[in-house]
Amino acid sequence: MNKLATLLLKAFLCLTPIAFVTNPAFSQDTDLGLSKGSVEHATALRDAAMKGSMAYNIVESLTTEVGPRLAGTDAEARGRDWAVAKLQDLGFKNVRVEPFTMQAWARGSESAELLSPYPQPLSLTTLGGSVATPEGGLEADIVVFPTLTDLEAAEPGSLAGKIAFVSHAMQKTQNGSSYGFHGRLRRSGASIAASKGAIAILIRSIGTDSHRMPHTGSMRYDPAINKIPAAALSNPDADQIERIHARGETMRVNLNVQPRPLGEVESGNVIVDIRGTESPDEVVIIGGHLDSWDLGTGAIDDGAGVAIATAAAKLILDSGKRPKRSIRLILWGAEEAGLLGGYAYLERHKKDLDKQIIGSESDFGAGRVWQLTSQVSPEAQPLVNKIAELLVPIGIAPGSNDAPGAGPDLTPLVKAGMPSLRLHQNGNDYFDLHHTADDTLDKINPHDLDQNVAAFAVFAWLAADTELRFKTP
Amino acid sequence: MNKLATLLLKAFLCLTPIAFVTNPAFSQDTDLGLSKGSVEHATALRDAAMKGSMAYNIVESLTTEVGPRLAGTDAEARGRDWAVAKLQDLGFKNVRVEPFTMQAWARGSESAELLSPYPQPLSLTTLGGSVATPEGGLEADIVVFPTLTDLEAAEPGSLAGKIAFVSHAMQKTQNGSSYGFHGRLRRSGASIAASKGAIAILIRSIGTDSHRMPHTGSMRYDPAINKIPAAALSNPDADQIERIHARGETMRVNLNVQPRPLGEVESGNVIVDIRGTESPDEVVIIGGHLDSWDLGTGAIDDGAGVAIATAAAKLILDSGKRPKRSIRLILWGAEEAGLLGGYAYLERHKKDLDKQIIGSESDFGAGRVWQLTSQVSPEAQPLVNKIAELLVPIGIAPGSNDAPGAGPDLTPLVKAGMPSLRLHQNGNDYFDLHHTADDTLDKINPHDLDQNVAAFAVFAWLAADTELRFKTP
Repeated sequence: MNKLATLLLKAFLCLTPIAFVTNPAFSQDTDLGLSKGSVEHATALRDAAMKGSMAYNIVESLTTEVGPRLAGTDAEARGRDWAVAKLQDLGFKNVRVEPFTMQAWARGSESAELLSPYPQPLSLTTLGGSVATPEGGLEADIVVFPTLTDLEAAEPGSLAGKIAFVSHAMQKTQNGSSYGFHGRLRRSGASIAASKGAIAILIRSIGTDSHRMPHTGSMRYDPAINKIPAAALSNPDADQIERIHARGETMRVNLNVQPRPLGEVESGNVIVDIRGTESPDEVVIIGGHLDSWDLGTGAIDDGAGVAIATAAAKLILDSGKRPKRSIRLILWGAEEAGLLGGYAYLERHKKDLDKQIIGSESDFGAGRVWQLTSQVSPEAQPLVNKIAELLVPIGIAPGSNDAPGAGPDLTPLVKAGMPSLRLHQNGNDYFDLHHTADDTLDKINPHDLDQNVAAFAVFAWLAADTELRFKTP
Repeated sequence: MNKLATLLLKAFLCLTPIAFVTNPAFSQDTDLGLSKGSVEHATALRDAAMKGSMAYNIVESLTTEVGPRLAGTDAEARGRDWAVAKLQDLGFKNVRVEPFTMQAWARGSESAELLSPYPQPLSLTTLGGSVATPEGGLEADIVVFPTLTDLEAAEPGSLAGKIAFVSHAMQKTQNGSSYGFHGRLRRSGASIAASKGAIAILIRSIGTDSHRMPHTGSMRYDPAINKIPAAALSNPDADQIERIHARGETMRVNLNVQPRPLGEVESGNVIVDIRGTESPDEVVIIGGHLDSWDLGTGAIDDGAGVAIATAAAKLILDSGKRPKRSIRLILWGAEEAGLLGGYAYLERHKKDLDKQIIGSESDFGAGRVWQLTSQVSPEAQPLVNKIAELLVPIGIAPGSNDAPGAGPDLTPLVKAGMPSLRLHQNGNDYFDLHHTADDTLDKINPHDLDQNVAAFAVFAWLAADTELRFKTP
């Protein structure tokens, strides 16, 4: 039997004998290092969430009463104030902000016009972190590259005085895996184009919709290369450029984007614990990020995650039981600016890294969870199997244990060795809305949020109530 | 038997005995005042269109090579130049422009911000014909009205210094009938609000999508009432206003829209005839309108109509046969500014009104035709029944003969007594895109256009080839 078959058989043997009984003998609890009745409690939390959680109310409140929350701005600060007040209002004690400083950036006016051969406006948005054009814009011919690979193959100097356009169309996938590949164009395209002499770069939005909704998102400059403005055209506008290019026409464009750096400003993570009864200094982390891009109101990215994790914590808070370890809810700051909240937390908690037991962040929209993956010790694998078993009835497929990753803001901790579990949401439509003005509350289905809350409540409860070690010694 | 039942029975008796034969005896042609083989020819035109017409290529060309075509602007003039060149290129002879003058309007910068209680930008667009706010915008509290009726019921003076907001949500319907009711808010809301003392009006977009895509469209001022700026919020933004209103909060807004009148400028209708063999001065009119709103590229409104009518005429042109009467293709100007091309045509052709035999315009998007209605004489009813019979196999249901209306630009002629036939497109999704930046080529399905072309070709051929009189004497 090959290795894969062995693994599949093991998984099958682990997961097959599922039987829900109303009065469990508690032996399953003891075997998993849990309190007596712990699995029953997790099941009850799951079922309560599925009957209706408060997640939708939370994201409704955040997106309505704060709206967009660009990292480092007053709007993000209002988001933190909202979070502190909301958590206190929900009955959480010792809500605190862990502040950190960051270099912030703000969008300015942005427009582009095709000057020739067919004069017409283009719908675009500046990429986060981009420098500005000269006032009044810059005017240049564009050079069309079907893919980033084609741009990379261009001769140095060949784009002198030109605007590079890269058309690269992202595809929909359930796990969102297309984003990693195509996202590189957004993140690194400007410096690659500048290295060939380009004076600006336009990209097709890293998104899967067909609306005049350009997608923003962060980009970085290679410090060794001069900085050029970078913006994304909506998909219909990128189609238009491709059609004109197919006619063999040279296109001249005026590009005018006026973002500005805001200098060093404050951001912060909002944190609260449900204190454990036996090992309160050991924490199981759940959360979402408070900041959002400025174009929409940050409903699916990541008001949904804030709401899911908060509602799961609230369910546990109200359940009348406390787990052995603490459950830490972190509403992260400045995720979109480069996981800054995650790095700040790691820096601050370096000395108690071994107390960060395991974590999972919700930051992939408002769709239902379809799969659970993890990276935990052999000792903790039976506990993860139990979590998976409890989530199968709500439509979540057990996945592999060789998948490090717990969501963006936990990446610094996971890289530093923290075990991880991830509740993968269906991302098929996520990139229709992600980082656009269309990321608004009306796109969220409350019942889908409830399913996420159920999954997070089961995970947080069981991971916090066990004595098993998630980390391989 | 009541009247409805009688009508239904008559319709049934007319339409039931459908039999397609490869070699018709031509008696049906003679009975309908047609040339011999005329019905067979119409059937062949239909089938040829269904196999693939050039409609998609035409709308691709117009939307790519001209883009947006706001009435009275240089862009609309480029649209006319495109049309003349395209028709000549397709082999039409004597392509001509009938110019007319109009008062034009152009959009300027436009923005709005909720200042309190929850600061955030709002996505909006100026309504066509609106006056500007003062430079820098105006700042005022908003007063929320669920419907236009509620606004109308407000006391005069009660909105002094305020911005009226009317939320009125339009619903999807196959026949688009919801537009008439809700459209009144867009057309007349400003003067109604001003009559109560309001200094501006914001409306929920007259549209059925859930994107940050505000819908523009024309509005008119009551000359007896002072003019106030008018703009539409996108549906998600209107939802946001409703949610904040539901919290009992007073909202303060800065509204800044800077449209400007362009004064008297030239527009025009582009016209070409397929000359009839027996009564060439009698014309059957088909067409679509060349102008569009400025936000999108006018693909479904009305590049599709231009393409459908042009492709139908081209099929007939290339068929090697000529009908008895002329078929007149009119690509109308300045429809969106108030059917100005239609009125100009009526004015110019008043003296030969009786030669305008019947007409049908395509101006309801790019969806498939689902119903045919008409208003013709009893003499011509059998011919309309034959048209309907030929269109049933491509999914078009015969409708009533008491439906005057042939499309917007033909309204002046129809009001002046011209008989009419209308090929109703499925409008269920039309108002998702109508008058928004999202009206772009990617929304069009080429096969749906082909079905429209088939219907227009059958109508134009048979209406032009018959000797029957459509007008009741």
